[in-house]
Amino acid sequence: MGILDIFRANRDQGTASVAKERLQILVAHDRAFRNRPSYLPKLQEEILAVIRKYVEVDMNAVSVNYEQDNDQELLELNIVLPEAGGRG
Amino acid sequence: MGILDIFRANRDQGTASVAKERLQILVAHDRAFRNRPSYLPKLQEEILAVIRKYVEVDMNAVSVNYEQDNDQELLELNIVLPEAGGRG
Repeated sequence: MGILDIFRANRDQGTASVAKERLQILVAHDRAFRNRPSYLPKLQEEILAVIRKYVEVDMNAVSVNYEQDNDQELLELNIVLPEAGGRG
Repeated sequence: MGILDIFRANRDQGTASVAKERLQILVAHDRAFRNRPSYLPKLQEEILAVIRKYVEVDMNAVSVNYEQDNDQELLELNIVLPEAGGRG
């Protein structure tokens, strides 16, 4: 079972069958060089900026989860898009 | 068990303990409006462009997986970063 299957299975469990425009982004960074400053927080801002070129994003509808341990960082962005959505 | 735990558990299984700088990005899009053209392929290019501001990315070290079904799209980017890496 690949990571995509697990990802999908987990999502299926969590959501009701309400049609909702939703974007979920996971960024995982395995850091071999721990002494370097992380660029994930900056990356997060820039990825959001890119997404906003394509869809309207209400910043209140964005939830961010950031985790860091010894050699790995995980950034999770959950965005509920407005029903009217779409920018082009 | 949250999605991040599953994600992490799966990654731990798959990798040996070799220290490698690696970036993995998952974008999942639940589409309520299926008739709209997808912007994920464009998003993929732009996310890569953003990442390249922070780290050197050898395009040969990028693997892309894109899946689409009725109401969901999944984009997966796997990037092995060069050991010398780091752009700032």
